[in-house]
Amino acid sequence: MKTLSLESGETSHEAHPENSTINGVAILEFTLRFLAAGGTLASAMAMGTAEEVVPLLSQSIILNVKFSDLPMFTFFVIANSVACAYLVLSLPLSFYHVIKRADKNSRLVLVTLDTAMLALVTAGASAAASIVYLAHEGNSNANWSPICQQLDSFCESTSGSLIGSFVSAFVLMLITISSAISISRS
Amino acid sequence: MKTLSLESGETSHEAHPENSTINGVAILEFTLRFLAAGGTLASAMAMGTAEEVVPLLSQSIILNVKFSDLPMFTFFVIANSVACAYLVLSLPLSFYHVIKRADKNSRLVLVTLDTAMLALVTAGASAAASIVYLAHEGNSNANWSPICQQLDSFCESTSGSLIGSFVSAFVLMLITISSAISISRS
Repeated sequence: MKTLSLESGETSHEAHPENSTINGVAILEFTLRFLAAGGTLASAMAMGTAEEVVPLLSQSIILNVKFSDLPMFTFFVIANSVACAYLVLSLPLSFYHVIKRADKNSRLVLVTLDTAMLALVTAGASAAASIVYLAHEGNSNANWSPICQQLDSFCESTSGSLIGSFVSAFVLMLITISSAISISRS
Repeated sequence: MKTLSLESGETSHEAHPENSTINGVAILEFTLRFLAAGGTLASAMAMGTAEEVVPLLSQSIILNVKFSDLPMFTFFVIANSVACAYLVLSLPLSFYHVIKRADKNSRLVLVTLDTAMLALVTAGASAAASIVYLAHEGNSNANWSPICQQLDSFCESTSGSLIGSFVSAFVLMLITISSAISISRS
């Protein structure tokens, strides 16, 4: 009698509607990691390859403008590269969570690192965004003139690279939240 | 016999070492919220009151420099004010978690909002930090000259206000992680 009730208890546990959604959340998280990894990679590459050669006064003197001329853009490339590397390395562990549901400790490790990466990507994107804004608009109070008239394609590449990074930061937020949901249901 | 075993089972559940640490984590989280609220408030106030009157050429023309002259500093003040208001409003719910342990849904709501606030505070601090860096160092490639020689006290206040914001962002990371730990143990 006791064995029977124990067995039926276990069966109902596995078929529980809450448990069946765990895997759904884990699969969503796994997919979001791919998206975030792609976004950070695209951002790092778009910013890293942003370059423009500007002729100064005459065609004899040329100015080569690269992302590394501005420290915030260098930080942006480093932050996105680190986040991309982490996201790729976290894929196996995330896949393990799709298969094995109730491993709370390894989920906690991922949540901790995800939160740190969210802060890193947001910081990089935000620092670069303020420089891109200054490059476009300038600031008359600080006497900083806009540089995008001369550096048209450089400004376009750097502005475009922000999109991938902000999308990745948003996706990392979703990953952190879905991890918390997974933990609460496992 | 059955009733007895059930009772003993419940008693051992309450005295379980993992459960006794839940409250510890919840109290830590509650304390961290105070710290983060104080940090964001101090940052918003330090930046919001940063002002300097600079005499131009002769003493007859004066220039009044405020935080609102730079849009990133305005964003910084807004981000820190919003985060401070949220943190103060979240204190009652956080206190409720200290008393009532196993409420996962309200914890998930807090984790979601904490993650969003972490991103907001990090973005504000990072955007302001890149402007403070430019104000101190300038950038010769973009032909942006440093403005801190003329605006000494303004630069000091804005640089100082970054500290509270970055500390708050770090504390918000700890809050998110400790929430996840609370969820995993409840």
